Amino acid sequence: MHSDNTRAGATAAPAPSPGGRVRDPACPEGFKAAFRHHPAGVAVVTADDGEGPVGLTATSVIPVSAEPPLLAFSLSGRSSTTPRITAAETVVVHLLAAGQVEAARRFATSGIDRFADTAAWRRLPTGEPLLCDADVWLRARIAERVPAGGSTLIVAAVLHVRTGDESRFPLVYQDRTWYTLPGSATVD
Amino acid sequence: MHSDNTRAGATAAPAPSPGGRVRDPACPEGFKAAFRHHPAGVAVVTADDGEGPVGLTATSVIPVSAEPPLLAFSLSGRSSTTPRITAAETVVVHLLAAGQVEAARRFATSGIDRFADTAAWRRLPTGEPLLCDADVWLRARIAERVPAGGSTLIVAAVLHVRTGDESRFPLVYQDRTWYTLPGSATVD
Repeated sequence: MHSDNTRAGATAAPAPSPGGRVRDPACPEGFKAAFRHHPAGVAVVTADDGEGPVGLTATSVIPVSAEPPLLAFSLSGRSSTTPRITAAETVVVHLLAAGQVEAARRFATSGIDRFADTAAWRRLPTGEPLLCDADVWLRARIAERVPAGGSTLIVAAVLHVRTGDESRFPLVYQDRTWYTLPGSATVD
Repeated sequence: MHSDNTRAGATAAPAPSPGGRVRDPACPEGFKAAFRHHPAGVAVVTADDGEGPVGLTATSVIPVSAEPPLLAFSLSGRSSTTPRITAAETVVVHLLAAGQVEAARRFATSGIDRFADTAAWRRLPTGEPLLCDADVWLRARIAERVPAGGSTLIVAAVLHVRTGDESRFPLVYQDRTWYTLPGSATVD
């Protein structure tokens, strides 16, 4: 044993620490409040499901495995784009730089044609929509679609990787605000 | 159709854009380079698998669904902590603030007793280790263990949520460096 901290047998809910709040997990507000301040990198995921180009802004893209190269992201069941991304065989995951905040906003906006500006994107030889100003992107084949509540967790096997110089100034999303690094203070 | 961009029939690999590099996805360096600059919030995930406290630093924690409240994170198959977290029934996911960078480092360091400082943690009434200076944390029951390459994607159902004031100064990890927000410049 690592310490003499004891494992209590009680099953009561954890007590709140001073200054904090214990939230009811059955109410979505507490869950959302906990994650509101959790920062995330920003991606635009595009695909073509055979019905035309489709895409959305995702702040849930994570690397899962380098060998073999796999990434994952979560798609909300409330987005009308989700079933179209889920139906696609392949996706392009653009990891956004600070200069691409306009794309991040556009692909998070409902009720617009996100591909209206035909100068802002092209198709890859394999058919997927690619944002023309993308500096870092990965093309991937959807390997797993894991239902999770009303959402879907996508696991995708990376087929192509493109990296570039702008990646050093990534876009960060937190509490409904866009930031970049390394403009922020380094913690030591 | 949204535009007159044409879908080419060729199957060649995408051409590199000026200044960028197309990486071989079969080599892990390209995948790692793409994600190296993708920022992430920082969490410490703790559990007790019945063999004592265990924990690790995770930069892959994402919210998946608010109703029902579900989160997910990825565990590398190369970490000796992974099988112990995976074997646990419940976990505590601490979303770290800038003031907790020492904990982030400690739970990312191999070959040490991460729970040696018994003043830095206690047990919840339900038995899981809790970092004493944790401001935002969620207790969750592991719902799914999805094998993905050599890694495991964990989906967990949130049982308790605790939020606090410090969450406004979250820890951010990017390119092996710790940052905080909102010290960084806001992008508009």
